[in-house]
This record gives sequence, structure tokens and C-alpha cells, in this order.
Amino acid sequence: MKDLLTVTPARKSTHLDQYNNSWYQPGPGWKILLWIVTNAVFFNNSLAVFNSLKCWLLQKFGAKIGKGVVIKTSVNIKYPWFLEIGDQVWIGENVWIDNLTYVIVRNHVCISQGALLLTGNHNYKKPTFDLIVKGILLEDGVWIGARATVCPGVRCNSHAVLTVGAVATSDLEAYGIYSGSPAKKIKERVID
Amino acid sequence: MKDLLTVTPARKSTHLDQYNNSWYQPGPGWKILLWIVTNAVFFNNSLAVFNSLKCWLLQKFGAKIGKGVVIKTSVNIKYPWFLEIGDQVWIGENVWIDNLTYVIVRNHVCISQGALLLTGNHNYKKPTFDLIVKGILLEDGVWIGARATVCPGVRCNSHAVLTVGAVATSDLEAYGIYSGSPAKKIKERVID
Amino acid sequence: MKDLLTVTPARKSTHLDQYNNSWYQPGPGWKILLWIVTNAVFFNNSLAVFNSLKCWLLQKFGAKIGKGVVIKTSVNIKYPWFLEIGDQVWIGENVWIDNLTYVIVRNHVCISQGALLLTGNHNYKKPTFDLIVKGILLEDGVWIGARATVCPGVRCNSHAVLTVGAVATSDLEAYGIYSGSPAKKIKERVID
Repeated sequence: MKDLLTVTPARKSTHLDQYNNSWYQPGPGWKILLWIVTNAVFFNNSLAVFNSLKCWLLQKFGAKIGKGVVIKTSVNIKYPWFLEIGDQVWIGENVWIDNLTYVIVRNHVCISQGALLLTGNHNYKKPTFDLIVKGILLEDGVWIGARATVCPGVRCNSHAVLTVGAVATSDLEAYGIYSGSPAKKIKERVID
Repeated sequence: MKDLLTVTPARKSTHLDQYNNSWYQPGPGWKILLWIVTNAVFFNNSLAVFNSLKCWLLQKFGAKIGKGVVIKTSVNIKYPWFLEIGDQVWIGENVWIDNLTYVIVRNHVCISQGALLLTGNHNYKKPTFDLIVKGILLEDGVWIGARATVCPGVRCNSHAVLTVGAVATSDLEAYGIYSGSPAKKIKERVID
Repeated sequence: MKDLLTVTPARKSTHLDQYNNSWYQPGPGWKILLWIVTNAVFFNNSLAVFNSLKCWLLQKFGAKIGKGVVIKTSVNIKYPWFLEIGDQVWIGENVWIDNLTYVIVRNHVCISQGALLLTGNHNYKKPTFDLIVKGILLEDGVWIGARATVCPGVRCNSHAVLTVGAVATSDLEAYGIYSGSPAKKIKERVID
């Protein structure tokens, strides 16, 4: 009898036409458009080799940039006014900082080639698939490995290491070394 | 005695010079060439911001494109005449639709930034490394996460979610949430 | 009492300002600059379709290139003078050969679209974050799958397969098929 009485509720659907991200206002249209062109010409291509110019442009667009910052070619940055970078930070080739909100990078941090920092997400439990934005914090001495991904809201604590291709979905402990997708701690980082 | 009698058979090698994909004819040369240029100029670069133009061009090249389709910048599409997209579909920045054959996307689907849809494979059991092409189907409400990969022949059923960086090597169940490489189901998607 | 007596030693920090890679001299500045431009114009963009020209240019810059080599569009190569490619080798779209030192590819090898070959690393145990460079060897018949990554110092032995999105952090056995991040052997490759 139980089987006959069990009712499977109809499952709900997403309706992307009802998506409403009007609350999210990252900046005036002219500024975004100007940055899209600047990003394309001076950052996100393989001839974009002028490091001082890149640091200067980021500052003009509202980023905080420390001393000794190195930005390689083909770097893609969403909105520089949501970017804070400390001293002695390296940003490798093809790094993608998709910062819909703040990405804060402290000192002596290395973000290796092809790494991706994500700040946007969607609420998959809502039919309206609501936008969720959460910042990222990379503390002193952190190393984000080549082609690794840091998910929205993740804080990588002091000197944490995310290895090649790993995907950090939650906070990384200080001096922890993380591997895999989703990333798990595999060992302790000991600096001589 | 057994060890002496055991014979290890000589292992065979691949011969890519004997590769023969002449049976695969995706379209006339002039059309492919014209698309390569169109794709480079109007799609696959960071200044390709004109959404309506992109939808129109895809249709002119034989794609079926529904209403409310949003295509971000730096999207790479192999052959538009093998592409069907429903209503209210979002295709994120740097998405790569490598469609050697049909990729069919239903309604209210989100393909997030950096995702890759693969349709080509090789038979690694043959010395001739034969080409294998298999389409992809993304049903209503599916979400392919940022930098996730969908392998050839995979059907993502209604409202399935492939999380950030995951690699779908086999079909995804309806309302299943999948993670990792290869992707495994981690939980059920419940929509309020 | 024990807890009171336990002393946590102060953990050391990295100092990227003390990084010293002056021992690493990949070539004269004019040659590197000339290659950066050549790579941007003739290789690393979606209109770079001229295969014979690409092979010829690589040879002029010091690469060894065999017969029947196919190089697709948007391929990114660091330093061609550290590149040796045998006969009947395919290099797919968006492949990134980040060869700070030698990458040696034997015959009948397929490097699929979006794959990444890494040769640079850092010593995360040193406050000075020292550069480490190690070459890569892909033996006959190897297949590096789409968007897979090969880490520095890895030797992929004869006919090994690294599947889609996998990350090879150590040597691959001959005729082994590897999957996941980090890649693990899942089965044997049997060629009919």
C-alpha cells in the first residue's frame, strides 16, 4: 500500500527569463566599456608585455597595486576597481581574475599561469538562478598553482599552496598544501 | 617452469600516418574558411561584445538560436551548422563549443565561463587512431559550471549541474549535482 | 603540563623580493622578443592556420620538427629552441607548450586541444621560492588528452594515454591509461 500512497512531487524548473541581477551594479557603463577596451589592448593578449604600464593602468582604474608587482601577458581582469594587490606579487600568463567583487591579494603571493579566480556563482536552488558574488582573499605567501581555480568566497590563508589544476572550493589552511578537484589537504608546507 | 613458458606478446604501435578521416566531411571548404574568420573577428576575442550580431551570424551559418540567448566574449565555436540552442540560454566568457557534430542545448541552460564541450575522440585501441565523433545534449535547466568539461556523447539530463572544473565522462542524471574528474554525483538538486 | 611546555616554532615566510633566477638564461633578449611577436602573429591566435609556415618558423627559431607534423590554431609555445618534435605528431588547438627547457616529443604523438605542458616550478620550501625547470619527454604513440596537463619532469612512456582534463604529476607507464587529478592509472591500453 505504501507504494501507492507515495507521491513524487513534481520537480521545479529554472526560469532564466526571470533572472534579476539589477541589484548588482559594478560601475558606470562608460567605465566598464573603457576597461573592456583597455583590458583587450594592454592586458589580455600575448603582446601585452609592458609591466609598468599595466600596473599604472590598473591604478588609474581604481586598483590598489603594491611594489614589485609583475603581471605577465594575456592576463584577463574583470573590474580593476575591485582589485587590491600587495607588494612582491606575481601574476602569471593567462591568469584570469574574474572579480565581480573584491579580490584581495596580500604580499609575496604567486598566482601561476592559467590560474582562475572566480567570484560569481548562482543559487541553483532557486528557479530564478540568483546571482551570488563573494570575494577572494589570498594571504601572504600564498601560491596558486598553474591552471588552478579558486572558487567564490574562498580565503587562502598564509602560505597555503594550491597545486597544479586543483580546485579550491573552501578555505585553505595556513601552510597547507592542497591538491585535486575539489582540493584536499595533502601535506604541510615547511619552509626552511 | 611457468615463468619460462610465459610469452609477452609484442605490443602494437600507433601509426598516425595511416590515420584516415576522409569519411568526416563537416562542410565545404569555403564555408569553413569563412566561419574561421567570422569566429575570430566576431566571437573569439575579448572585444566581441555584440550579442545580437553574434546570434544573427550563428543563424546565417546554420545554427538554430532561440530567444533570450546571451553569448559573452571570447567564445569559440567550431561549426555553427552543428549547433542548436533553445530559449533563455547563457554562454559565458571563454566557453569553447568544439562541435565536430551536433551540440544541442535546450532551454534555460547556463554554460559558465571557460567551459568546454567536446565532441571529438580517437579510438586508442586502433593503430590508425580512428576519429570518433559523438554529439552532446544539454537538457532544460542544465548548468555547466565554470571551466567544466563535457566529453563526447554525454547527455546531461534535465537540471543536472556539473560543478566548477568537473569533467563529465558519462551521462548526468536529471537533477543530479556532479563534481570531480571524472565527475561523480555528490548530491541531489532541489529547487524551492 | 605538556601543553604548556609545547612550543610552536615561528613559521617562516616567503620573500619574493629575494627571488633570484639570474642563473636561468633561456636566450638573448632580441631572440626572445622576436619570438614573442612571431608566436603572437603566426601561432597563438585563431587565424594562425598556415601549418607549413608554422613548422618552418619553428625550425628557423631552432626547433627540431619531423615530417607530417600538424599544428592547429592558437598554439602557444614559450621557446622553440627548447622543442624537439618527431614525425607524425599532432598539436591541437589551444595547446600550450610552456617550455622553459626541453620538451621532447617522439613520433606518432597526439597532444589534444587545450593541453598544457609545464616545465617550470618553484621550490616552495625555500623563502626565496627558487625556480626549478625540468623537461618533459613524450615517447612514441603517447596521447595527451584535451585540456590535460603534464607537470615538469614527467616522462610519458610509450603509448601512454592521459585522459581529458587529467593532471600528470609523475611518470606514466608505457601503455598505461591515466585519469584524474593527480592522474592515476585506470587501465591498460591494448592496441588490436
